[in-house]
Amino acid sequence: MNRLQITEKIIQTKISKDIKWSFVAETLGLSKEYVTAACLGQMPLNKEQAVLIASIFDLTEEETNWLTVPPNRGSLPTAIPSDPTIYRFYELINVYGSAIKELIHEEFGDGIMSAIDFSMNITREPNPNGDRVNIQLSGKFLPYKKY
Amino acid sequence: MNRLQITEKIIQTKISKDIKWSFVAETLGLSKEYVTAACLGQMPLNKEQAVLIASIFDLTEEETNWLTVPPNRGSLPTAIPSDPTIYRFYELINVYGSAIKELIHEEFGDGIMSAIDFSMNITREPNPNGDRVNIQLSGKFLPYKKY
Amino acid sequence: MNRLQITEKIIQTKISKDIKWSFVAETLGLSKEYVTAACLGQMPLNKEQAVLIASIFDLTEEETNWLTVPPNRGSLPTAIPSDPTIYRFYELINVYGSAIKELIHEEFGDGIMSAIDFSMNITREPNPNGDRVNIQLSGKFLPYKKY
Amino acid sequence: MNRLQITEKIIQTKISKDIKWSFVAETLGLSKEYVTAACLGQMPLNKEQAVLIASIFDLTEEETNWLTVPPNRGSLPTAIPSDPTIYRFYELINVYGSAIKELIHEEFGDGIMSAIDFSMNITREPNPNGDRVNIQLSGKFLPYKKY
Amino acid sequence: MNRLQITEKIIQTKISKDIKWSFVAETLGLSKEYVTAACLGQMPLNKEQAVLIASIFDLTEEETNWLTVPPNRGSLPTAIPSDPTIYRFYELINVYGSAIKELIHEEFGDGIMSAIDFSMNITREPNPNGDRVNIQLSGKFLPYKKY
Amino acid sequence: MNRLQITEKIIQTKISKDIKWSFVAETLGLSKEYVTAACLGQMPLNKEQAVLIASIFDLTEEETNWLTVPPNRGSLPTAIPSDPTIYRFYELINVYGSAIKELIHEEFGDGIMSAIDFSMNITREPNPNGDRVNIQLSGKFLPYKKY
Amino acid sequence: MNRLQITEKIIQTKISKDIKWSFVAETLGLSKEYVTAACLGQMPLNKEQAVLIASIFDLTEEETNWLTVPPNRGSLPTAIPSDPTIYRFYELINVYGSAIKELIHEEFGDGIMSAIDFSMNITREPNPNGDRVNIQLSGKFLPYKKY
Amino acid sequence: MNRLQITEKIIQTKISKDIKWSFVAETLGLSKEYVTAACLGQMPLNKEQAVLIASIFDLTEEETNWLTVPPNRGSLPTAIPSDPTIYRFYELINVYGSAIKELIHEEFGDGIMSAIDFSMNITREPNPNGDRVNIQLSGKFLPYKKY
Amino acid sequence: MNRLQITEKIIQTKISKDIKWSFVAETLGLSKEYVTAACLGQMPLNKEQAVLIASIFDLTEEETNWLTVPPNRGSLPTAIPSDPTIYRFYELINVYGSAIKELIHEEFGDGIMSAIDFSMNITREPNPNGDRVNIQLSGKFLPYKKY
Amino acid sequence: MNRLQITEKIIQTKISKDIKWSFVAETLGLSKEYVTAACLGQMPLNKEQAVLIASIFDLTEEETNWLTVPPNRGSLPTAIPSDPTIYRFYELINVYGSAIKELIHEEFGDGIMSAIDFSMNITREPNPNGDRVNIQLSGKFLPYKKY
Repeated sequence: MNRLQITEKIIQTKISKDIKWSFVAETLGLSKEYVTAACLGQMPLNKEQAVLIASIFDLTEEETNWLTVPPNRGSLPTAIPSDPTIYRFYELINVYGSAIKELIHEEFGDGIMSAIDFSMNITREPNPNGDRVNIQLSGKFLPYKKY
Repeated sequence: MNRLQITEKIIQTKISKDIKWSFVAETLGLSKEYVTAACLGQMPLNKEQAVLIASIFDLTEEETNWLTVPPNRGSLPTAIPSDPTIYRFYELINVYGSAIKELIHEEFGDGIMSAIDFSMNITREPNPNGDRVNIQLSGKFLPYKKY
Repeated sequence: MNRLQITEKIIQTKISKDIKWSFVAETLGLSKEYVTAACLGQMPLNKEQAVLIASIFDLTEEETNWLTVPPNRGSLPTAIPSDPTIYRFYELINVYGSAIKELIHEEFGDGIMSAIDFSMNITREPNPNGDRVNIQLSGKFLPYKKY
Repeated sequence: MNRLQITEKIIQTKISKDIKWSFVAETLGLSKEYVTAACLGQMPLNKEQAVLIASIFDLTEEETNWLTVPPNRGSLPTAIPSDPTIYRFYELINVYGSAIKELIHEEFGDGIMSAIDFSMNITREPNPNGDRVNIQLSGKFLPYKKY
Repeated sequence: MNRLQITEKIIQTKISKDIKWSFVAETLGLSKEYVTAACLGQMPLNKEQAVLIASIFDLTEEETNWLTVPPNRGSLPTAIPSDPTIYRFYELINVYGSAIKELIHEEFGDGIMSAIDFSMNITREPNPNGDRVNIQLSGKFLPYKKY
Repeated sequence: MNRLQITEKIIQTKISKDIKWSFVAETLGLSKEYVTAACLGQMPLNKEQAVLIASIFDLTEEETNWLTVPPNRGSLPTAIPSDPTIYRFYELINVYGSAIKELIHEEFGDGIMSAIDFSMNITREPNPNGDRVNIQLSGKFLPYKKY
Repeated sequence: MNRLQITEKIIQTKISKDIKWSFVAETLGLSKEYVTAACLGQMPLNKEQAVLIASIFDLTEEETNWLTVPPNRGSLPTAIPSDPTIYRFYELINVYGSAIKELIHEEFGDGIMSAIDFSMNITREPNPNGDRVNIQLSGKFLPYKKY
Repeated sequence: MNRLQITEKIIQTKISKDIKWSFVAETLGLSKEYVTAACLGQMPLNKEQAVLIASIFDLTEEETNWLTVPPNRGSLPTAIPSDPTIYRFYELINVYGSAIKELIHEEFGDGIMSAIDFSMNITREPNPNGDRVNIQLSGKFLPYKKY
Repeated sequence: MNRLQITEKIIQTKISKDIKWSFVAETLGLSKEYVTAACLGQMPLNKEQAVLIASIFDLTEEETNWLTVPPNRGSLPTAIPSDPTIYRFYELINVYGSAIKELIHEEFGDGIMSAIDFSMNITREPNPNGDRVNIQLSGKFLPYKKY
Repeated sequence: MNRLQITEKIIQTKISKDIKWSFVAETLGLSKEYVTAACLGQMPLNKEQAVLIASIFDLTEEETNWLTVPPNRGSLPTAIPSDPTIYRFYELINVYGSAIKELIHEEFGDGIMSAIDFSMNITREPNPNGDRVNIQLSGKFLPYKKY
């Protein structure tokens, strides 16, 4: 048994029982972004949260234990994503990456936006010309240390 | 002469004359995100905007013409970015990519967030534990067409 | 169980029962291009369509549910396709790609042809020197947003 | 001197003299798709056509000779194109490639669509929901030889 | 079940029953080059030929059906072949590729040798200094279409 | 100065003086296949032959010396060739590679066809359905040594 | 002019004037690890430090300005380093990477060692069996944020 | 059965029985760094140590034998690691690699730090601004041999 | 069943029965280098030798037949080997490859060292500073054929 | 100026003045293998040796200084060498790599053959069937350290 098998079981159960990620998130009292990532094997949960997930997706005790372990992260099967929905974000980095770098350095000096002390928020923005996907990224600025 | 040479000239002039991207953006009346991308050779400008850029960065008429042509986009020299500031965004896609896909489909159905009808906004979010980089992405949702 | 297994089951049943894609398309009232892509795991179907597919290819209820989920797209096992029939289209992009880009920009300005709001039509064009494959691609033009 | 340098000179002259590909095509009496590909170093021209191109783009006699030589084809700098306008066509092959293969085989039997005995036609299709890019591909069907 | 499994079954049966490809070719009345490629999953056979193959290699009816379907071609597991017998041919292209291109263009003008309307003949050429492998490739010349 | 620069000079002179490879081959008394490969920097020549080449292509003494040195071989700029004329040969290996291996082993036992003790012959084969490119490969069979 | 050219000039001057990195570090009052990285174009310096570097390596004012700009980081020309001295560190990650991950998680919980709030110290450790290279890495532990 | 399966069994048992690597290390009387690497299939153990591991993780005799065999090393599934905790070390080599090389050569002359006669020590360094991960690498310096 | 499965069975039996490669080699009367390569699926054996191997490693008759077939060679799972013991040889080619080429050409003229008519001998060379691995490679020189 | 330019100058001078590597080696009193590697930019020389090289190849003082610096090693332009003379050694690792690993471990236990404390000797071995290239590799065995 490995983590991937648990992810596949969760997805399969989600489809056959028609469960919504937002429902799972409410049950755990966490954001839907974090919970979805955890269910897909990218984030760990604590014991209590894992038990809740187990009850929703009919997991065994051993499967539940796996949910509490820091996973081997990385959800892309290839270096460049092939799925169009995911690829568009890679394209944004490809087109806007150097601009983002310039603007972060202009505003904050040398450093990076943390991908660890980080949160994300995906919402629907109604718009008469067609609704928009609104994604808010928030990460702590980490300056390079001089020594 | 090619577009890359103009980008290098702009960067060099920016460093020696200590120009801010936000100043350039104000002069053109566009967002700093779009203007920076344009100066780095990822977006075209119209004739009037190009002339303003030319006056800021001392471009010749021929160089100015290049700014109005749709560029060959792609600002990453390698498939996976090596600069840490840019890499962190690639890491976010790698870790959160499948979660983002799931949540967009749960909210909107099958489709993508446009990377063309798209805008971005980078701001500093003051925070007692260290200021945060705040990036807002807004793209039109495009549903797959059935036929 | 995963989507790939369902695709393999559909193909196997198609071979042993000698089913035509055009027959499947007529049964669903959709184009044969869309239906074939859906059966190969590249497009989702609605509940009603999935049930029709299930009856043609003897799918179980759980397998039928999978057909309604937006799939992880990407039908090429390698970055550059090795099958000659598919490779020829990659070759066309390699040889004609920059010309297509130039002509789209000359006609429409900066932007792209959508691969989402998109349809395709494959027909046989009789010709005394040997019949021709005729493929019509139609995608909405999406101009880059300035902001 | 090599072919790439001639391509760059043509593009630069096109920008500074604001020449349209459709104008070049009319002057030569060929389709704009073929002429653009030839100017970008993907197709050769005969002597007479090369001289016309030379007069439009101010080429020397030696540069003109290069236009008549079968070029080393391939206009993508990377295996997977990074420019969004070109990438969308790669995405189409990635998503629809296996469906296209199935439908060509269903209609014609085993074989390929030629990328050599081939023509392409790019037109604007007016549409109240936003104009569409219409691309027609026509290639001779080549059946595999049994021996 | 998929085509690869049938290929593996054929190879295994060939080894345990010590069957020669030349015997299989004679039985079918086709060249040994075509028949071997077909048995290895690179070429389809018609119904009658497939039945003969089935009787030689003890295939079931369902397995026999697979032999008549145009396969997904590509027999190299990596982009550059690692087996020395196959690699030598890749080396020939790497060393002689540009010379072959020059000579085809000098003799025929711009175009390619077809890999579809194509046959191959492998024979042993006795030689006092050690016998030689003699491979004859014959493909229709396809000129690029001007339009 | 390096070998690549000499290759480029030879090609350029060939174009501007309209020299045929077959003429160069006759002058040297070697096959056109070997001579073309040598001029493209894939084979060395002896002193006498190099001097003849120099007189045809106006090379300096230093450039002539380079022609006699065993070159760094490899004429493909990418692992998989992008030019269609060269690619077709790569495709043949991809589709027929394992069949060739099987048939060489069936005829000769374990070993390879040499790519060093090797010659090649490209001829035009007239054919009412369109002339054919005929390529004859002849390489010494080298059996694996047991020890 | 770009950053790489300044790095090359610094290295060349270092060789011809036989300057030690430890001397440069003392002059600036920073660690030799940070200063070397800065001179090789991986870290920026402030104005005062850049002027000191300029006086050591004879840089012009424009070259000095470049030293203060956050650089595009990444000192490996290939994804896997080919130089043996650098490769050994890549090998350590390849062999010990998963063990390091396990032990960081066992000690700290889920998170990473920062590569930004980070310092390094390289020293010689005398040893009768041959001196040892001693490298001390110290990075802030960053726990994943739950939200 | 292969080594990977034993690694997976050890990890699974570790999770379900909640075993600490530091406990395993104490039991064997080796460092936790070495023991963790051994359990993850990167280092062999002697018979006695293997038996102790077997008793902790409930291994069969055959599985225990595997632990004593020098393994095929390499714990990264891709050339560039995707897990953020491991990636940070790859980033350090990418950013600091050439500086490390320079400083080793300045201190020791030409040569490398051994990755074989090597040990590592991971400790927690308490710090009011957030605890730090402290990693000490110690490898024998190996000078290149002149001959 | 395929050749890889037989290799895995041989390795597993070797570990559980503690068989030495040198013992296997003596039994067959071949060098240990050849025999090890054959057992790992890189060289074929004749019928008699295969039967001896089968008796040592408890192979079935069908498994024994596989040992006599020329295998698909290539024992590296990745283009660049990750195991340090094997990698060191790749490093030698990377560092010394061009020097080896120069020296072979200086001694023999243009050509290669055969990897087919080739033998290898690995011995231990006692040395007071630590024993040395001594590897002797012997391959027939093959001159390029002129034609 | 960088090291590569010096390598190119040495090769060019070698060709125009017809210098032998063995002559250079005798002048320096080192093996021809080491000296060739040093001239090709893979090994450093001491001051005295560098001056001798400079007198043979007409180097300036600054170029001579470069010869004494530990170089960035790696003489292969691509991950897999394309030149047949060098490729054959890569093929040997690909075919024999796992056998070499097995035999080193059987003779010495877990560890590697050093590529640093290493020497090589290339000689011609007369043989009535065609002379053989004889290459002797000698590297110190380095056992993995347990700690």
